[in-house]
Formats: sequence, structure tokens, C-alpha cells
Amino acid sequence: MRQNTRQKILEAGAEIIHLKGYNHTGLQEILQATGVPKGSFYNYFRSKEDFGLQVIDFFADLFASMAGEIIRDESLTPLEKIARMLDGFMDFFKSKDYAYGCPIGNLAQEMGDLSPAFREKLKRAADKMVDTYRGLLEQARIAGEISADLDATETAYFIVSSWHGALVRMKIEKGQKPLENHKRFIFDYVFRR
Amino acid sequence: MRQNTRQKILEAGAEIIHLKGYNHTGLQEILQATGVPKGSFYNYFRSKEDFGLQVIDFFADLFASMAGEIIRDESLTPLEKIARMLDGFMDFFKSKDYAYGCPIGNLAQEMGDLSPAFREKLKRAADKMVDTYRGLLEQARIAGEISADLDATETAYFIVSSWHGALVRMKIEKGQKPLENHKRFIFDYVFRR
Repeated sequence: MRQNTRQKILEAGAEIIHLKGYNHTGLQEILQATGVPKGSFYNYFRSKEDFGLQVIDFFADLFASMAGEIIRDESLTPLEKIARMLDGFMDFFKSKDYAYGCPIGNLAQEMGDLSPAFREKLKRAADKMVDTYRGLLEQARIAGEISADLDATETAYFIVSSWHGALVRMKIEKGQKPLENHKRFIFDYVFRR
Repeated sequence: MRQNTRQKILEAGAEIIHLKGYNHTGLQEILQATGVPKGSFYNYFRSKEDFGLQVIDFFADLFASMAGEIIRDESLTPLEKIARMLDGFMDFFKSKDYAYGCPIGNLAQEMGDLSPAFREKLKRAADKMVDTYRGLLEQARIAGEISADLDATETAYFIVSSWHGALVRMKIEKGQKPLENHKRFIFDYVFRR
């Protein structure tokens, strides 16, 4: 029960922060969305900041579980897995009318200059995303799908960072184009060099 | 004098919004930074939203003027102009300890889902940035610096969008790496295909 309440607050609060940002989301709004009294909130989170930091872990876990499912699919080659991940995110954002964006990217943009605690946690979360792509690129190299001289770490870093930019553009474009443009340049130029 | 006061409010407010975001910046804070009374603010701006929208124009003009100076430099080839622009932004962000990021990208991320008025204005501002690179890429194609089959519009769109992602990463990295990584992938993979 205790774990359920904590999870309920995290899920509802994460969705509001995902859409509106951290600073623009009031504690009161999170409490109202979950129907949990303030005192109960403080049983699970020391402060709004502590809550925000735990929301980052919540999102990092979500990414890992979405990616993990695709990575375990043995019917796909490593590059097909990367394509499937990007396509999966495209479907997700289409279903959300191209709102939200990546919560890790959003919070990096909003909080990177304002809070060292957020910055450190977001860096670790972004590094985990990079690691996911790096692992797939190393497999792709072994499988001969990409050139042996393509640096897996640098390329993974570029995929994640340029993806975050595509999502920024998506939020004003309200369409698939920036995400498709990102995938095309990664596959047609970086992978097929 | 009238124009000066308006400009003074715009400059000071733009800097605060650039660092803290639109929603997290109070009107009171802008007034304090400029030393202008509330009544005077409303002589120039109908509302905080109207101010925010004019701040977007302010930043778009700033980008155009920075880019314009480089574009007019006849000693540089078109691709050298693109390199100079990216290097110039790197120097700027280094001098700011890798804070701030691109105000257009920041506001797109923050306001894209929250305000149709911001969305429209930001889309126009981002399109102008794309146009700047598109023009240089068309000249680069004519000069034979890039392959004739590289689509100038799509490529310019990718440069701007992936650049915004590099800046998101910069804000948690607090270093040059994401900006250098962006430039390297654009020049080594997209341009030299």
C-alpha cells in the first residue's frame, strides 16, 4: 500500500512535470492530481526537489524498460533495434499529438543551469540512454552493419543529443517531420557512410 | 527615450528568461532588473505574454545579426561560414560557462505545448534559422563544397534541430563536448558523404 501511494504520486506528478516543466508545476497540483494529502506526500518525498529528482529516476527506468523490450527481441538486427526504438517513440509522440517531448531532455534544458542536484542526476540518466545506443552500435559493428571505424560512443552520444533537438522542434512543429528527419540523417548519413 | 526604455526592458527581461525560462520569471523580477515601474512596462507591452512574444523577436534579430556578420565576410567559403557560426556560438557559450542555451530552443521546449501564440512565433523564428543555413548550403553546393544530391532544406533543418539537442546536453554537461560532437558529425558525416 505504502509503495502504491508513492508510485501513484510519482506517476501523476511525472506526467504533469513532463508537460508543464518542473518549476511551473506546483506541489498543490500534484497533490490534487493524486488525491493525496500534503502530509502523506512528505512520507515519501523530503521536498518538491526530492520529488523532482525521483521523477528523473522514474523516467530513466521507463526508457530502460521500453528499450529493454526491443533489445531482447532476437528477430531484429542491432540496427533494426535502433530503428524500432526511434519508430516506437514516433508512435508514442503521434499518440500524444506531438506534445511532451523527452522528460530527461526537457528537465536538462529547464534545470541544467538552475540546480546542480538535477544536473548530476540528469547527466547520469542521459548517459544511460547513450549507453543503450552504444551497446547496440557495438553489436552492429560486430554484425558488419556499420563501418568498423564508426566510434560507437561518440555516435551514440550524437544520436541521443540530436534526438533531443528533434523533440524540441517537434513541440513547435506538432508533426512527425523533425523525428523522421532525425532518423533519416542518422541512418542515411551516419550509419551508411 | 521611449524606444530606449522599451529596449532596456527587453534586454534585461530577455536575459532573465534566457536563463530561467518564461514561466519561472516573474514580471516583478523583470521590473526590478530594469528599474522600471509597472505602469511604464505596460506602456510598451500589453501583458507578460506580449512581452514574451516580443522577446522571441529580440532573440531572432540577435541571431540574424550574428549570422549576418559572418555571411557578409567574403574571405570565407560557404562551409567555412557555417563552421565560423558554430565556432562563434561555442566561444559564446564557453564565455557563459555553458549556461543559457539557445533562447529559441529553450522557449520551444518550454512553451510549445502550452501556448499556440508562442508556438507560432517560435516556429517562424526557428524557420529563419533554418533559412540561414539553407542559403549557405545552396551556395556550398554551387561552390562544389558539398555533394549535389544533399538536400539543402532538409540538411539545414537537421543542423538547427540537432544543434538544439547539443545545447540541451551542454546544459547538463557544462562543457564544450556536445557542441564539438555536433559540429564533427555534421561536417564529417553529413557534408562529406
